[in-house]
Amino acid sequence: MLRRVDKDLPVAELMAEIGCKARTAAQSLAIASPDKKTAALAAMADAVDRRAADILEANVRDIENGKNAGMSPALLDRLKLDHNRVAGISASIRAIAGLKDPVGDVIAEWDRPNGLHIERVRTPLGVIGVIYESRPNVTADAGALCLKSGNAVILRGGSDSVHSSKAIHEALLEGLAAAGLTETAVQLVPTTDRAAVGEMLKGLDGNLDVIIPRGGKSLVARVQAEARVPVFAHLEGLCHVYIDASADLAMASKIVVNAKMRRTGVCGSAETLLVDRLAVPTHLVPLLEDLRSAGCEIRGDDGVVELFAGAKPATEEDWSTEYLDTIISVKLVDGVDGAIQHINHYSSHHTEAVVAEDLRVVERFFNEIDSAILLHNASTQFADGGEFGMGAEIGIATGKMHARGPVGVEQLTSFKYRVRGNGQTRP
Amino acid sequence: MLRRVDKDLPVAELMAEIGCKARTAAQSLAIASPDKKTAALAAMADAVDRRAADILEANVRDIENGKNAGMSPALLDRLKLDHNRVAGISASIRAIAGLKDPVGDVIAEWDRPNGLHIERVRTPLGVIGVIYESRPNVTADAGALCLKSGNAVILRGGSDSVHSSKAIHEALLEGLAAAGLTETAVQLVPTTDRAAVGEMLKGLDGNLDVIIPRGGKSLVARVQAEARVPVFAHLEGLCHVYIDASADLAMASKIVVNAKMRRTGVCGSAETLLVDRLAVPTHLVPLLEDLRSAGCEIRGDDGVVELFAGAKPATEEDWSTEYLDTIISVKLVDGVDGAIQHINHYSSHHTEAVVAEDLRVVERFFNEIDSAILLHNASTQFADGGEFGMGAEIGIATGKMHARGPVGVEQLTSFKYRVRGNGQTRP
Repeated sequence: MLRRVDKDLPVAELMAEIGCKARTAAQSLAIASPDKKTAALAAMADAVDRRAADILEANVRDIENGKNAGMSPALLDRLKLDHNRVAGISASIRAIAGLKDPVGDVIAEWDRPNGLHIERVRTPLGVIGVIYESRPNVTADAGALCLKSGNAVILRGGSDSVHSSKAIHEALLEGLAAAGLTETAVQLVPTTDRAAVGEMLKGLDGNLDVIIPRGGKSLVARVQAEARVPVFAHLEGLCHVYIDASADLAMASKIVVNAKMRRTGVCGSAETLLVDRLAVPTHLVPLLEDLRSAGCEIRGDDGVVELFAGAKPATEEDWSTEYLDTIISVKLVDGVDGAIQHINHYSSHHTEAVVAEDLRVVERFFNEIDSAILLHNASTQFADGGEFGMGAEIGIATGKMHARGPVGVEQLTSFKYRVRGNGQTRP
Repeated sequence: MLRRVDKDLPVAELMAEIGCKARTAAQSLAIASPDKKTAALAAMADAVDRRAADILEANVRDIENGKNAGMSPALLDRLKLDHNRVAGISASIRAIAGLKDPVGDVIAEWDRPNGLHIERVRTPLGVIGVIYESRPNVTADAGALCLKSGNAVILRGGSDSVHSSKAIHEALLEGLAAAGLTETAVQLVPTTDRAAVGEMLKGLDGNLDVIIPRGGKSLVARVQAEARVPVFAHLEGLCHVYIDASADLAMASKIVVNAKMRRTGVCGSAETLLVDRLAVPTHLVPLLEDLRSAGCEIRGDDGVVELFAGAKPATEEDWSTEYLDTIISVKLVDGVDGAIQHINHYSSHHTEAVVAEDLRVVERFFNEIDSAILLHNASTQFADGGEFGMGAEIGIATGKMHARGPVGVEQLTSFKYRVRGNGQTRP
């Protein structure tokens, strides 16, 4: 556990103080100039690069602790940093710095017959709480996205990544200071005591406007059950790939292998492959052979097990399991109807892909499935704010309120109306 | 109390059944054609007109009950219908029918360097619960707005307006039937048992996606404290008008009297008047005389009481009181700085107006006050979805998540991403 920085205050008092500081910071951030925020972000990115050795050293300690604690390979992969990934962190901050400042942006404007001119203008949300587990890059992405969108942020990282997060946070503070912004704009909760999460869920006396949980099922479930403030829920990614009979086989194989195997520990990795029964004679065995060659375990329904010797039988539980591992469940379905039915029943409404040349199939898949992201002829691993051009993301929201899909700077804003008249009164 | 329509089911069972029916309706509404929804809305409006006599008769019963129960004049005004207001209800449904269908609307689209084409497309939210008190027109506005936006709705009106709401709801059902849409798209909870609200707050087994409370402080507070589903909170409207020294006096007077007195029972009515100290010699007394002539009681701070004989002294409580009555609190402030300070402290973040000719004052008022609606040289009574061109509104949201200000069809939608590729995999 980290030492409590603020003179060993009790957790409730510590968190109340953090909340107050965040609210004050939010008030000044809301009217901070775009240039100042951009300068802070640029300085943050430079500080991350300059401190890369410290960050990697801290990460080694987290990885060792993780191994000793018996962490799974997929979770270790989420936790692990190397030179490339640290460079990725600073590149991501720079990408966020380069985004258009959303605050003050006129989203819509119109005139009324009585001469009133109405503008809908973006505003920050206020104070954002991010509760996350093992991914240290969340520290940087969340800090940078909140700053760009004019919000103060309270980061509460997991004990798994405590050293890495702290090293990254120090770089962020250096950037804030360099631009003359208050360091309380991006606070990292200096204790891994779980009571700190409890305080955040209670809302810090009205000083927390929204909570974003990033982590496993039990964390998200606790946050959703207990939070007294709005939550942008990031549930699991139980993503599907459907291969239609009209699919190009080579493309289908490339997409399925990438969707499953590129990184198995990310929420956009595919967990279930649905194959059109009409594609069985042509597509099924080559697809499964390619997956197996890539090192993937196959768990199939009866039809799959019968046709592919290497497949183990899937149980009912498999269709609801986010493996985050080199395992895929495979089911034969009756065309796009069967795929839609299966997905609407089992999906976590995160991301689904269809591989097909028949565009009528694609339109039905796009219209009748209600998931945050639907892809045609592309890998589910594109479910990522950076890949969407948002610079980065705090997470992929699977709820439908306010934010859905990758949560980037725009999703971290609200809006207000500015109405200009010349003496109008209402009849 | 209304009879329980469904064979005297216990409330929990009744509400569970209503939730299931709403979910099923939502699935078919999400893919219903725009024409079918528009036809249903047109038929609803016609049915309201045709049933006007029945609706007014039902309203007379509600008004009598309200008077017997000692309801305040402002609340009776909210409850009261007459021929004009019934015509307003059908006109509002027709205005909603004429709006652009939001479902499927491409809000944004862009290309990525790797060739992926991304669209952000509007989708319905699903099932919306509206819990309201004495305003019978909410039945029609909420029903029509939810239908237009492809959502199923569960309406839970207060006991005050039970007869009026039921009569209006019957007209809505007639419209749904005429267009061949399921009548479960717009359900009115057939009991005034408060346990029904409790069931809605628990989320109806996942069959309720958002709750919109419309009513007094205690209702909204209960919903916010107990709801296990997202809430579009409509808190009180503690609206301010600030008169700057640069204000045109005739315009200021017209706006203040309208903002306070046009209808005192609506949430956009002004409750506090802030007058620039520099405007005292020229503006204060004429403004207060005009208010008093219009029948308004004045409660002022020390300076006001000293300068205007007709003013009673205001207490600290007055600055936080939504009178919804012919009373206004009046305070002298040090220019726009003083106004911003007072409003940011006491406002419910609903609607505030500035009357000024100095545009620097207006810009500061617009930038530094974080309320849903800010108006320049116009009455706060324009805080209304119909006046904003949204056809109508379910309420004015004072929270910052998802919806803010008037909640119309766009605010009742979510979105999803449709991504089109040609074989892209992620490196």
